[in-house]
Formats: sequence, C-alpha cells, structure tokens
Amino acid sequence: MRVLGIDCGTEYTGYGVVDLLSDDRNDDRDHGRNHGRNHDRLVCICCGAIKVSPRDPMPARLSRISIGLQELIARHRPDRVAIEDVFYAANVKSALKLGQVRGVAMLAAASAGLEVAEYSPLSIKSAVVGYGRAEKHQVQQMVARLLNLEQVPETPDAADALAIAICHLHTAATQERQAS
Amino acid sequence: MRVLGIDCGTEYTGYGVVDLLSDDRNDDRDHGRNHGRNHDRLVCICCGAIKVSPRDPMPARLSRISIGLQELIARHRPDRVAIEDVFYAANVKSALKLGQVRGVAMLAAASAGLEVAEYSPLSIKSAVVGYGRAEKHQVQQMVARLLNLEQVPETPDAADALAIAICHLHTAATQERQAS
Repeated sequence: MRVLGIDCGTEYTGYGVVDLLSDDRNDDRDHGRNHGRNHDRLVCICCGAIKVSPRDPMPARLSRISIGLQELIARHRPDRVAIEDVFYAANVKSALKLGQVRGVAMLAAASAGLEVAEYSPLSIKSAVVGYGRAEKHQVQQMVARLLNLEQVPETPDAADALAIAICHLHTAATQERQAS
Repeated sequence: MRVLGIDCGTEYTGYGVVDLLSDDRNDDRDHGRNHGRNHDRLVCICCGAIKVSPRDPMPARLSRISIGLQELIARHRPDRVAIEDVFYAANVKSALKLGQVRGVAMLAAASAGLEVAEYSPLSIKSAVVGYGRAEKHQVQQMVARLLNLEQVPETPDAADALAIAICHLHTAATQERQAS
C-alpha cells in the first residue's frame, strides 16, 4: 500500500510518499525469528515541500499547490491520501487560510479518485513516537528511524508529511490484522 | 464587464453572474437628461446555488463545488470573480471548513486565469443598500431592485452572491471614474 501524506501550510506544504511492503521472505537477518510471519517494512519513496511565496495572491498560491500535488499523485500513484486534522488555529483568519490549502489538497485527492484519511496530531504522534505529546524533533527523528533514512528530512514539513503517511499505514495495517 | 460573485458555504455555495453595461444610447425614458453621459446598467445573467450534501465526505463535496464553478466560468466567461472576505466564524472547525470551500473557489478562478477580488460584508452591504449594517432581507430586496428582477431570488445564497458581484462592479466603476 502506498500513501501520500500532506502537511498543509500557507507557505510550505509538506508531502511524503510512503510504501508499506509486506515481505514474506525469510530474511537472513531474522535468524528464523520471523519465519512464517509477514514482515512489514516502511519505505520512503519521496518527500519534500511545495513552497509558495506569501507575497503572491492567495489564488496563485493555491494554484501552485494544486498543480504540485496533482503532479505528485500522477507520478507516484498513491492508493490513499492522508492529511492532518486541525483543531487549533491562532485565529479565524489563519484557520480560514489553512482551510483554503486543505480544500485544495482534498480536491487534488478527490479529482484523482482517492479517498482522504484525516488524523489528529495526537494520533500521528502516537503512531510514530508512541506518545501523543511528543515534541516535534522526536517525531522527526522517529520518522527517519522508521523509514531507515540516513538523516532527518531537511524540511520539517516533509518530515511531518511522512509522519502523517506512517500514521495512516499503521492504522490501516492494524485494522487489517483486526479484520483477519 | 461581467463578474461572477460567489458566496461560499459548506452546504450551499451561491453564485451570481452580473454584467455592467455602459449604455450610450439616448434612451427615450431619459427625456434627454442623460444626454452625452454614460448610462450604466446592471444585468443579472444567472444566479443559483450549488448544493452539496453534508452527509457526503468533504473531498466529494469540494469536488462537486469545483466542477460546478468550472462549468459556470466556462459557460459565462466572467472577467473577474468576487468573493466575500470573512472575519468571523463560530469556531476554528467551521472557519477551516469554510476556508476549504473558499480555497476551491479561488482555485477555480485562478485555473481559468481570473483574478479574485475580496470584499468585507460591510463593503458589500454598503455597496448594495448604502448602509454597512443592513439586514439580510434588505440586501436581498435591493439586489432584486438593482437588477430589475421580478422577485427576490429564492435562494438567499444566490442573492448574497449577486450582492458580492454588484459590490465589485460598483467598486470597479467608481475606480474607473476616479482614474479618468
């Protein structure tokens, strides 16, 4: 399963594409411990951020974000899109602006026939760090570790987007195990 | 000049297309009073609302609104899009939801190469009724009168969208007069 995680923002919109691979091979490193069990593996396909200038008019910014996300979806063909659910904003104006970017992200998914899963910040931190009140840098370090990255992604928004994708894959894998 | 006014909403998104016609004819009814002067006239081309079900997932609703607005733009080819600027929402959640619809409306305009003008509720009421604190029904009645409609538009969201379009046309006409 392949997920595109999107971390919506009015200046940087982070993205991360993550695969969950079910590996049935009896890996040498397992020393037989996982023999007969599926061995799930998370793989980072790509990550980054779409940057827009706060000096540009909002419609132009949204257009750029929309085109960027459409290109990512066309190139990586994810099975699902995951975004962060938001409960807090400094004020109505900033909630509206963030909502505008979320709307464009949801539309990019819907136009490609993809469902959108939403996760609270608490669920995302719990899924990645195992602790809902984890600090930002803890999330970033765990993202790098879970995806076997050589270093923490340079852009914090990219790391956040990967965390959202990982959260969805964990949740989906858990639901699948419970259903079987 | 032709303007598409959009009144964004998470259930009903009102729209109204209005033309401002500069009529140089020496109209019989003028009895010569406007001889030699431009005689601006507002004409309602169409109005209505795109309804989405609150039971549908948000991405599907946004997709429907997006397609509806794209069709309107393709059919009526406005020169400009006008929307209401929002300063108040009951809470962050509702501001985010409204923002999502606004994002989709702005994107529809930007994708068609159209600029988006934003007006505060106060400016819109002032432009239509001449009084920034006018009641909703006063705005609706003045919209019907200014556009020579036989009756007030059935959908309040359509009337609001027409009011936004009228506000832009008044503002643009005033700026043009000041510039000349």
